[in-house]
Amino acid sequence: MSQTSNSLRQTVLGVDPGLTRCGIGVVTGAVGSPLSLVDVGVIQTSAVLPLELRLLELEESLISWFDKHQPDVIAVERVFSQHNVRTVMGTGQAAGIALLLAAKRGIPVVMHTPSEVKAAVTGNGRANKSQVADMVVRILSLKEAPKPVDSTDALALAICNIWRGGASNKITEAVAREKSRIAKLVKR
Amino acid sequence: MSQTSNSLRQTVLGVDPGLTRCGIGVVTGAVGSPLSLVDVGVIQTSAVLPLELRLLELEESLISWFDKHQPDVIAVERVFSQHNVRTVMGTGQAAGIALLLAAKRGIPVVMHTPSEVKAAVTGNGRANKSQVADMVVRILSLKEAPKPVDSTDALALAICNIWRGGASNKITEAVAREKSRIAKLVKR
Repeated sequence: MSQTSNSLRQTVLGVDPGLTRCGIGVVTGAVGSPLSLVDVGVIQTSAVLPLELRLLELEESLISWFDKHQPDVIAVERVFSQHNVRTVMGTGQAAGIALLLAAKRGIPVVMHTPSEVKAAVTGNGRANKSQVADMVVRILSLKEAPKPVDSTDALALAICNIWRGGASNKITEAVAREKSRIAKLVKR
Repeated sequence: MSQTSNSLRQTVLGVDPGLTRCGIGVVTGAVGSPLSLVDVGVIQTSAVLPLELRLLELEESLISWFDKHQPDVIAVERVFSQHNVRTVMGTGQAAGIALLLAAKRGIPVVMHTPSEVKAAVTGNGRANKSQVADMVVRILSLKEAPKPVDSTDALALAICNIWRGGASNKITEAVAREKSRIAKLVKR
């Protein structure tokens, strides 16, 4: 039984995308066994830099995170229109860079909507930020929620991915291998 | 005099960003001398592919364009909110990838709003698509406007960049060299 859990055990790197603050949360575990915090933090880029240099900084930092933790899956928040358009732009670009990096490495990418994450972590798709943070603290047996909130949101994404994934992760991995093969064909 | 024109002569690669169709237009010339079409086309990615693979395809194609034409400047359309949010996302991500590639290579990037482009090319910031296309045809002495319209828009961006740039390009280039230096420091 613990053998089965181990074989489904995976390291998920959650990305709460943003240009000013991009939350990163790394969680390891499997459905039905306790989850553990591996690492958490936030990538910040300076608003005084030109956009192209901010994107470059973000990519460099994401590469460091990917290299350090060798995640099995990347979970990225699916961005919607509720924010103002200026913010959505940076958020979308940050998400795009994370997706592109994952694709280059053949790492499976799963996108979750904010309400999917809230529902998975709290049981309520309309939970507020502090309810999500409280549950992240409990699930990962932390003393307090990491700050800023972007990093807690990234942990919630990673937790959501493990809990929603379960047995279907094997399928996700098979799909990712196929995607990686196609990606290499595209590259020629 | 022709010596002066030559020293200001530059190759600009315009990018009208998009995930389904990303227009690319390469123009060479200088302020006060005729402009020439170097190359024009459109990068398309398939909507049936997962987002991360579409971004990968787009990046690969942009790299080919950059490699082939070794542009002095990249001109990218600044994306706004007038489109629906789904489109804005793909547009922003495509623009982000073009900006990131330029930053990695230390190529100066300039962003122009649609109305700046229209004003530069037609004299009217509210010109319609066909007025812009007519002027692009005249300015570059073409027989007809390239299709689809994304590619013509990319040419208009490149023209706008050359005409608005002029003497200040030397400054832009100096700034780009400095950005590239900072980018290397960021990379360590």
